[in-house]
Amino acid sequence: MANITKKVSWSSRTDESGAAGEGTPLLNGSEQPKLSRQLSGGGSIFQIGRLSTVDLEEEITSEEDSLRGRPKEIPHNEKLLSLKYESLDYDNIENQLFLEEERRMSYMGFRCLEISRWVVCGLIGFLTGLIACMIDIVVEELAGIKYQVVKWNIEKFTEVGGLSISLILWAVLNSVFVMMGAIVVAFFEPIAAGSGIPQIKCYLNGVKIPRVVRLKTLVVKVFGVICSVVGGLAVGKEGPMIHSGAVVAAGVSQGRSTSLKRDFKIFEYFRRDTEKRDFVSAGAAAGVSAAFGAPVGGVLFSLEEGASFWNQMLTWRIFFASMISTFTLNFFLSIYHNNPGDLSNPGLINFGRFETDSVTYNLYEIPLFIAMGAIGGLLGALFNVLNYWLTIFRIRYVHRPCLQVMEAMLVAAVTATVSFTMIYFSNDCQPLGPEHTEEYPLQLFCADGEYNSMATAFFNTPERSVRSLFHNQPGSYNPLTLGLFTLTYFFLACWTYGLAVSAGVFIPSLLIGAAWGRLCGILLASITSTGSIWADPGKYALIGAAAQLGGIVRMTLSLTVIMVEATGNVTYGLPIMLVLMTSKIVGDYFVEGLYDIHIKLQSVPFLHWEAPATSHWLTAREVMSSPVTCLNRIEKVGTIVDVLSNTSTNHNGFPVVVQVAGSDEPAKLCGLILRSQLIVLLKHKVFVELARSRLTQRKLQLKDFRDAYPRFPPIQSIHVSQDERECMMDLTEFMNATPYTVPMETSLPRVFKLFRALGLRHLVVVDDENRVVGLVTRKDLARYHLGKHGLEELQLAQT
Amino acid sequence: MANITKKVSWSSRTDESGAAGEGTPLLNGSEQPKLSRQLSGGGSIFQIGRLSTVDLEEEITSEEDSLRGRPKEIPHNEKLLSLKYESLDYDNIENQLFLEEERRMSYMGFRCLEISRWVVCGLIGFLTGLIACMIDIVVEELAGIKYQVVKWNIEKFTEVGGLSISLILWAVLNSVFVMMGAIVVAFFEPIAAGSGIPQIKCYLNGVKIPRVVRLKTLVVKVFGVICSVVGGLAVGKEGPMIHSGAVVAAGVSQGRSTSLKRDFKIFEYFRRDTEKRDFVSAGAAAGVSAAFGAPVGGVLFSLEEGASFWNQMLTWRIFFASMISTFTLNFFLSIYHNNPGDLSNPGLINFGRFETDSVTYNLYEIPLFIAMGAIGGLLGALFNVLNYWLTIFRIRYVHRPCLQVMEAMLVAAVTATVSFTMIYFSNDCQPLGPEHTEEYPLQLFCADGEYNSMATAFFNTPERSVRSLFHNQPGSYNPLTLGLFTLTYFFLACWTYGLAVSAGVFIPSLLIGAAWGRLCGILLASITSTGSIWADPGKYALIGAAAQLGGIVRMTLSLTVIMVEATGNVTYGLPIMLVLMTSKIVGDYFVEGLYDIHIKLQSVPFLHWEAPATSHWLTAREVMSSPVTCLNRIEKVGTIVDVLSNTSTNHNGFPVVVQVAGSDEPAKLCGLILRSQLIVLLKHKVFVELARSRLTQRKLQLKDFRDAYPRFPPIQSIHVSQDERECMMDLTEFMNATPYTVPMETSLPRVFKLFRALGLRHLVVVDDENRVVGLVTRKDLARYHLGKHGLEELQLAQT
Repeated sequence: MANITKKVSWSSRTDESGAAGEGTPLLNGSEQPKLSRQLSGGGSIFQIGRLSTVDLEEEITSEEDSLRGRPKEIPHNEKLLSLKYESLDYDNIENQLFLEEERRMSYMGFRCLEISRWVVCGLIGFLTGLIACMIDIVVEELAGIKYQVVKWNIEKFTEVGGLSISLILWAVLNSVFVMMGAIVVAFFEPIAAGSGIPQIKCYLNGVKIPRVVRLKTLVVKVFGVICSVVGGLAVGKEGPMIHSGAVVAAGVSQGRSTSLKRDFKIFEYFRRDTEKRDFVSAGAAAGVSAAFGAPVGGVLFSLEEGASFWNQMLTWRIFFASMISTFTLNFFLSIYHNNPGDLSNPGLINFGRFETDSVTYNLYEIPLFIAMGAIGGLLGALFNVLNYWLTIFRIRYVHRPCLQVMEAMLVAAVTATVSFTMIYFSNDCQPLGPEHTEEYPLQLFCADGEYNSMATAFFNTPERSVRSLFHNQPGSYNPLTLGLFTLTYFFLACWTYGLAVSAGVFIPSLLIGAAWGRLCGILLASITSTGSIWADPGKYALIGAAAQLGGIVRMTLSLTVIMVEATGNVTYGLPIMLVLMTSKIVGDYFVEGLYDIHIKLQSVPFLHWEAPATSHWLTAREVMSSPVTCLNRIEKVGTIVDVLSNTSTNHNGFPVVVQVAGSDEPAKLCGLILRSQLIVLLKHKVFVELARSRLTQRKLQLKDFRDAYPRFPPIQSIHVSQDERECMMDLTEFMNATPYTVPMETSLPRVFKLFRALGLRHLVVVDDENRVVGLVTRKDLARYHLGKHGLEELQLAQT
Repeated sequence: MANITKKVSWSSRTDESGAAGEGTPLLNGSEQPKLSRQLSGGGSIFQIGRLSTVDLEEEITSEEDSLRGRPKEIPHNEKLLSLKYESLDYDNIENQLFLEEERRMSYMGFRCLEISRWVVCGLIGFLTGLIACMIDIVVEELAGIKYQVVKWNIEKFTEVGGLSISLILWAVLNSVFVMMGAIVVAFFEPIAAGSGIPQIKCYLNGVKIPRVVRLKTLVVKVFGVICSVVGGLAVGKEGPMIHSGAVVAAGVSQGRSTSLKRDFKIFEYFRRDTEKRDFVSAGAAAGVSAAFGAPVGGVLFSLEEGASFWNQMLTWRIFFASMISTFTLNFFLSIYHNNPGDLSNPGLINFGRFETDSVTYNLYEIPLFIAMGAIGGLLGALFNVLNYWLTIFRIRYVHRPCLQVMEAMLVAAVTATVSFTMIYFSNDCQPLGPEHTEEYPLQLFCADGEYNSMATAFFNTPERSVRSLFHNQPGSYNPLTLGLFTLTYFFLACWTYGLAVSAGVFIPSLLIGAAWGRLCGILLASITSTGSIWADPGKYALIGAAAQLGGIVRMTLSLTVIMVEATGNVTYGLPIMLVLMTSKIVGDYFVEGLYDIHIKLQSVPFLHWEAPATSHWLTAREVMSSPVTCLNRIEKVGTIVDVLSNTSTNHNGFPVVVQVAGSDEPAKLCGLILRSQLIVLLKHKVFVELARSRLTQRKLQLKDFRDAYPRFPPIQSIHVSQDERECMMDLTEFMNATPYTVPMETSLPRVFKLFRALGLRHLVVVDDENRVVGLVTRKDLARYHLGKHGLEELQLAQT
């Protein structure tokens, strides 16, 4: 839709080879079935037009980055597919070392491993719960102080006049908090911005998002989310919990931290993408579980967003982590709330208990619910479209950290001002109940013993506002209050999402939905004769909240379960499902879900569940990249160094071929080796000649590869002398001897299914003589998508 | 453990080639890497030692069966793997016909298909809900009449003496109902016996269980389950609902019925295993959903038992079917209960509403719950071991239908007698509450205004008994009553499961668990000082029920959700999870789950989630079957007929190879063709010579294959004349040109992962020149399992 200049905000780094991808043929289809093999003397180094950019220099580049200042801006178009993102390896590299290790391991060894997986999951759950608890308590305390100060100030000035001073106090307090949050995010770790859910979705999908599961990111995220919630922005602290859980998982499971430069020498077996992904799934689930008190919802979230291959044992471990997480949070919160041991009140957001009597619904309400689902879908689509344009605007104009901080502060100040104005001009006074359900009742210009109803919505943390909308007695809000609140909060929330602060969109969505839902309930009660009996405003607030949230994020199964678990009552299961489905169908008609929009704007090569329906006419031949750079089974070191140093191609996987000595026949595939493996080999100088001279030296082990994981050094950092360049390297032991292959005639859906189901990174395309003719990677498959005019092909770019 | 003579009870058919599998080498490992290819003149028909028995003659054989009388008995050992069971084809056969059709289809075509998938799922849900509703109402009415008659009789004879007449009346009534149920099952459709869950598990796993999704099976199942529940057996009607849902799904999605001989000419696209499996998943989920009012639990059940490849759209459809099913059941039941439109009371079994006040639990109760989980695991293991021995006994001695009917009648009479005796000798009298919560209160020898407490447990449908145990006031049962009830019901339920009646084990398990759980609660209340405050017997009954059920069936995630949904309150989520996990861990230490035991006793080649942990030393070379019978791309009709008619091998898939003309080189793989496809080709006489002579004749289409699905005629029914035998057949268009292949060195876990993730039926093993060296099928992978002494290999047999 828009062709704009952008700075990639998920990672503030750009590649040197920025404009390299241009001019390469994007459809190397049947026009060029003949392979232009360039056989170099003795070796078989085939050049390749386009292949993945390496992402191994992460550590280095980010340091360089700060030196070379702000990166240059690159033309950007959302129909692009970035070559910057690498794939994760969810397929075990079954080389001889790996098989030897597995074969050596006894049955007891596997049992111990399984037990340590459970232990890690338990730890993940425990730590995630603790973090959630910490965030909750700090936010509660700080927000309490802030609202008390402002309330005291307002009360002081209500009588003597000069409420503008209160307004300024409020706005300044908010801005200061938000400024702190925005500074850490914008200057120290831009990846910590937003809810983190799109990033975790990508990670679980198999895309490596740089720095997304680092300890530093976690620290910034936690600090940032506290600041932005206390700063009174229209945000929630739930989305970030999911990201936090994932970071905890990635950290704990590896038994070391690069940020802290500590290696605990434990869990070394888990130092590969396959295992790490499983733990990150568990972490994300634990995060959801802590955020909403929804362990089953957490498991479903992980599965819905991540898993392609469903494994029962894994699911149970994820479930266990979720369970421990809810339990930990509950336990510590119950102590904090001076009610130790009461575990029945879970989650960061708690919808409060819906009483059994008020939750019944009737058949004739179902169409009403569905209609509300449709409204939620429409409003959600509007929200997403507005946020889309806003994001484009931000990418174009607001990409400097200082500008981002200023925008965040502006939003904070405007939020305070709008809230204050709304409260000031509202004349919706309600009697103060005897049980003091309101935390910070503002009397303002109401009579004694009354409070301002608008203030319960605005002058409160969003979680409490949601609860008030669900549970306050019918009549607590008048329709005008709700209408105005919906309108203003809708635009505030829309403006807020995408700021350089850590914050989620769940709670604002729920709040908007609850407000207009309650409004619907009130209207129904007034226009129908029996409505006042069945049209409980709290019930309609819940349905509205589900509709709005569904319309914005477009999850169904997991969201249903999350909502049901958060309400603590399964009676609403059916209506919530119906509402979420309707809102998804209606919303999808206009625009994608919010997370998908943001993923697309980052040009991430995201693989959906299935290949586009009409892609059967494409075959591996058209899809694959070719020619492929291949290596010989015994290859010259110099050749390998040259291949790895070639910055214009930057491949990550190389088919290993074997040539029949003295024969003219083309080489046959015998394995696949990764750049990261080659780098470790070069670093340890595993050369044939050296092996002969120092026989006593220890053999290279799997441990050496694990120690280097996941941040392998760049090729530039490895010194290879001129003599060494003439040595040979035997790759036999290290290559994956049984890579998955497909024939050239395989249809795209079939290739896609194999690739997605097994979580591959490279898929070798061979001819009927088992000779390498091409390589399929994630970008080759993600390029094709179903647009409005049938199958479309995205452009590849280095951005 | 036992080496016994058996008749396979899941399908009363045996193969002619009964003893064929004997003497074949079972580990064709590295001792025989050389392939003994037997090249027949011109063709390349390789003979094969052992491969799958065909299951295409189903229709015919079952007719023959009744003619040739009872099948002979075959030595049986549970360490066998039956060759009788065929695999389903979950991998699309991408031949030219299929690709042409897919390529012709427009985007709108795919949309319509997607919509019709939703329509089918809606229909599945609706019909499953209707069936559940019908079963519920009929059982309710018939059981009501039965209990009223007996109650009236007992009341009459209590005063005048002669209660033995009442006992006889009760026992006879029960036996008559059970006899009817057992007769239809034993004589008409043995596959309808039991809960059907093991069979559906196998189906979803990819094993073709003959006649499991037929309309006839459904009718017998529904009639049978009504009879057995009304007959007062210790059974539930929930398990059979899952089977019923699956049958409905398989029927509706195919748009025709073989039993009714009707073809509605709709949903023809869905006539293949891939699509059918998806619908059967939805049907099973709808069944769970109707049985327990647990739509999310249903989805999770389907996924936990079935899906290997998680697909978001599919999950949503399954969810939709579940939702509709609960909704339908609810709606019609609400009308039946004269409360139309009240949808808040779902499911066949309803645990009743747990009030919020009584459901809170404290931290110090968690260890108690875990201890109860352990007890549940132990009792569950005991149940399973007893039932295992009983099943072995039945396989050996009680395999004639008349014996089976007599055993069922005996159980029914004993159940009635035991119940009567227990009630008679019980002196646990309770005051009759004013609200008459008991449906059939038996006064017996109690004072006026009191009722016999033992009778609420025994003189009632099991569903009502469970509800009483959960919800009756503390003090409604005395400990002795509960103890005796647990003891007797445990053995009755154990004896009952496996009878030739349609019945489930869910409700009896819940009932046993609820009884001892309530007992625990009462004991806790009496031995601790504050126990009477927190130890609510209803709460402990629920925990006990979960523990017992978990200990018997060993599901965790789906069962947790089912229990939570059935209680209508998520507060118990955490304790239920803990309890189910504990009971699974404890139970698994002793013996497998009940369903797995029954699957194993049937020697089904069931594939678990992962290859055994210590199987890395096995490679495709050791696992595969070889040599393989291959066909040429253009093959003589006579050769094909001979290959298909060879009853000693009975292969189902044949690699298609191409030979370079005039060259000595071995043939290269170019495709894979199935027996079923060859049979359709032969039937339509698609011979090269004929094609030339009648050019105008229509080409063979995908429709012809679909019309023959799933019951392809046997080769014997196809007449091929001597002239035609000399014709040639061109397989190019019909074979799957891009079958998945692996090299010989691939490790077993890798082969397993590919096979399981993609739902394959045949996986071709090739050498580095792309020549066929072997074929891996389901049995080759299912053979290896982790026994007590490491990796064990099951024997293959034709039984």
